[in-house]
Amino acid sequence: MPTAHAHAAILSVGDELILGQSLDTNTRWIADRLLDLGVRPLLHATAPDDRADIAAEMVRLAGRADLVVVTGGLGPTADDLTRDALADATGEALVEDSDTLGRLAAWYEGRGQPMPAPNRVQAMRPARARCLPNDHGTAPGLSAALGGADIFCLPGPPGEMRPMFQRFVEPALRPGLLVRTRAVQVFGLGESRVAELLGDLMRRENSPLVGTTASVGLVTVRMRWESAPGAPPDAAAGALDRVEARVRELLGDAVITPSGAPGDRGLPEVVVGMLRERGRTLAIAESCTGGLLGSMVTRVPGSSEVFAGGWITYTNAMKAAQLGVDASHFPEVRSGAPGAVSAEVCLAMAEGARRRAATAHPGGSGPGAGGTDHAIAITGIAGPGGATEGKPVGTVWIGLADRDGRTECRRFEFAGDRDAVRQWSAMTALGMLRMRLAGTDMELLRQRERRP
Amino acid sequence: MPTAHAHAAILSVGDELILGQSLDTNTRWIADRLLDLGVRPLLHATAPDDRADIAAEMVRLAGRADLVVVTGGLGPTADDLTRDALADATGEALVEDSDTLGRLAAWYEGRGQPMPAPNRVQAMRPARARCLPNDHGTAPGLSAALGGADIFCLPGPPGEMRPMFQRFVEPALRPGLLVRTRAVQVFGLGESRVAELLGDLMRRENSPLVGTTASVGLVTVRMRWESAPGAPPDAAAGALDRVEARVRELLGDAVITPSGAPGDRGLPEVVVGMLRERGRTLAIAESCTGGLLGSMVTRVPGSSEVFAGGWITYTNAMKAAQLGVDASHFPEVRSGAPGAVSAEVCLAMAEGARRRAATAHPGGSGPGAGGTDHAIAITGIAGPGGATEGKPVGTVWIGLADRDGRTECRRFEFAGDRDAVRQWSAMTALGMLRMRLAGTDMELLRQRERRP
Repeated sequence: MPTAHAHAAILSVGDELILGQSLDTNTRWIADRLLDLGVRPLLHATAPDDRADIAAEMVRLAGRADLVVVTGGLGPTADDLTRDALADATGEALVEDSDTLGRLAAWYEGRGQPMPAPNRVQAMRPARARCLPNDHGTAPGLSAALGGADIFCLPGPPGEMRPMFQRFVEPALRPGLLVRTRAVQVFGLGESRVAELLGDLMRRENSPLVGTTASVGLVTVRMRWESAPGAPPDAAAGALDRVEARVRELLGDAVITPSGAPGDRGLPEVVVGMLRERGRTLAIAESCTGGLLGSMVTRVPGSSEVFAGGWITYTNAMKAAQLGVDASHFPEVRSGAPGAVSAEVCLAMAEGARRRAATAHPGGSGPGAGGTDHAIAITGIAGPGGATEGKPVGTVWIGLADRDGRTECRRFEFAGDRDAVRQWSAMTALGMLRMRLAGTDMELLRQRERRP
Repeated sequence: MPTAHAHAAILSVGDELILGQSLDTNTRWIADRLLDLGVRPLLHATAPDDRADIAAEMVRLAGRADLVVVTGGLGPTADDLTRDALADATGEALVEDSDTLGRLAAWYEGRGQPMPAPNRVQAMRPARARCLPNDHGTAPGLSAALGGADIFCLPGPPGEMRPMFQRFVEPALRPGLLVRTRAVQVFGLGESRVAELLGDLMRRENSPLVGTTASVGLVTVRMRWESAPGAPPDAAAGALDRVEARVRELLGDAVITPSGAPGDRGLPEVVVGMLRERGRTLAIAESCTGGLLGSMVTRVPGSSEVFAGGWITYTNAMKAAQLGVDASHFPEVRSGAPGAVSAEVCLAMAEGARRRAATAHPGGSGPGAGGTDHAIAITGIAGPGGATEGKPVGTVWIGLADRDGRTECRRFEFAGDRDAVRQWSAMTALGMLRMRLAGTDMELLRQRERRP
């Protein structure tokens, strides 16, 4: 057993990864968690569903790192070979673990089914290894000592792997570093503009180290402070407070993370949080995003306190009938009309949603009673088809309507394919509502805006 | 130089990958391309921005494979070390490549800028290596012989890497294999049940080789035929036809991929395709999924031909007012009422959506005119809160209503967190509609169903 986990290696297992049929998202998630917890990732590798290759990689990585985390290959089928490979690597025989067998039987019993014969192999473990119970699936994990390292094998599905990592790997860590991180999310500035504004703050020799990563619509600014274990505990907090204050000063209103809030909160969490704090309610009307905005909002636990609901008005007929959009805005009713992708229709959708979501049980209360405070509408051309003269693919109108009668409607041209246009649309809609709630101006939207 | 490229290894380079700050999408893309071109990927690895680690991985992988493809570490900064590592691995000195230097100078001249001093290092190459011009950025690639293998180093940004792979790596390949693949998607059977039904068909010594991978709600059965180059070209198609027919026979109605359709089509694509073929229309009503089902349907290009729209009725008040659900089903109106998560409310949501989506412009046509043919409703408890006596988190009702008056409503208990329950709910709803459209019975749903 290593005295400390200074360095970690991560091994993912599976032909579907090796052959390029699936994207490995586990390795990144594990690396990120390990670093946050003070164990520095050193190497990653991926092995095919080949017993000898998996065992060889386990042995090689255990020779370089104090901790090896393996994902995948614990299923019940003939191409799930992580169990056997671990037995080969540790030089132990496989034995049946009776607790695990009981847990497997109970899993199927709870579902009113007999346990399929192949699943029995999932109760096998190398003689001196430990089985790690899986509450979300049938594949138990394994932990063992291998050479001078600790090795953990976890199932591949992220919904099973992540809770098991938190339950079994995290408490077992003996970090070789004292690491403290902080992050803030930025909306409305591209990654290179963020880097330009941060300037010398991003030099690689700085401590805390400041870096950026970008995903659709958001840039994350990460701050990382590290030291040997035993450093004065206040040093990290003070250093991170100072650099975070400087980041906020340089990036201004573009920082969406509230002071003191966790830096991994996305825009939906931030917006739902602001609505909750202010006791405000929201309704939405979606056309080209087709439910994506609603899905993002309702992914946030507790969103039911503020979100009344919405409409997916994919056809013009739905826009008119369900949201009260004047049918004469549509060219199939009146020639020369502005059409579904227009300021007129977008604003009418937002106003219709805000007013109509107001319906409540007679005498009832809760979100939706007496009208929502805010509404968002999105209508645009996600592509690949649907472009018309003057309205290329990516043209999207986003509108806000408030209880006090204020409205706002902006036109964007988003780049990318259907998915990208839809993602950018929903994120930008949330960004607009956030600016409205925070009382900041909408200048930050200019980068992707197209004035009509 | 290897006589053939039978096996490939892929190495990605970068601290941002090792530390979990960026997701590596290059490796998957390269692996997928290589397999299609007849070169079997064997191992993947990721190295940090450390010269010795990169060089050691190059040498190790060149010892296992005939072809090594490296991405990343070719930029102009001090932490871009792939050039130096390749020189160390091949035992050559770095020399300046005058063509490349000229190309770099021209790149900056074309942008009206002086070449920054650090970029000059990008014209360096190991003495016997070849520089590969990059039309989309400043980082040239490198190709060299290393041990018995060919090694290609390409820049990390996908927009630069991909065209360079196609331009330089693909024409240089001498495939060691003739590979043909096929896949079908399966809904309604767990991965272990699929394996049990396929039985000997999945033996690892078979050709074609049959394997499975699972993601939320779907199992993919992959068939891969491979042979030496020069095998009779019809052999693959015949062998794959035979094994696919046997897979379809063994798995029956659970196979959702239409005969002859691409095997990477998901359930939304399949359902939208079936609706289009039959000229049918769809409306939806979502509670706990909050727009996720609509988002899945409208992600499919062309879904506007069949999808009228839907409602996100997150509050009970919205369910009553917008879909006509009898308010006396809700306990806040009548004590002892069944509540939002019940067969009564689910069916009323589906029927309300089907009828109300029927509204069209007077005299109009298209999806939604005269009522949709099908509607789906989902209402449940995604968690983490909201569980009540007899209705644990994960309890979800899914209902179908058809134009001909047929209705169907089933209760499920899905495992996992909020995200998992929502994903399973939306996928299962699509699976139910597919069974309805295909005219197969719904026995396949039993695995996750809970009879009330």
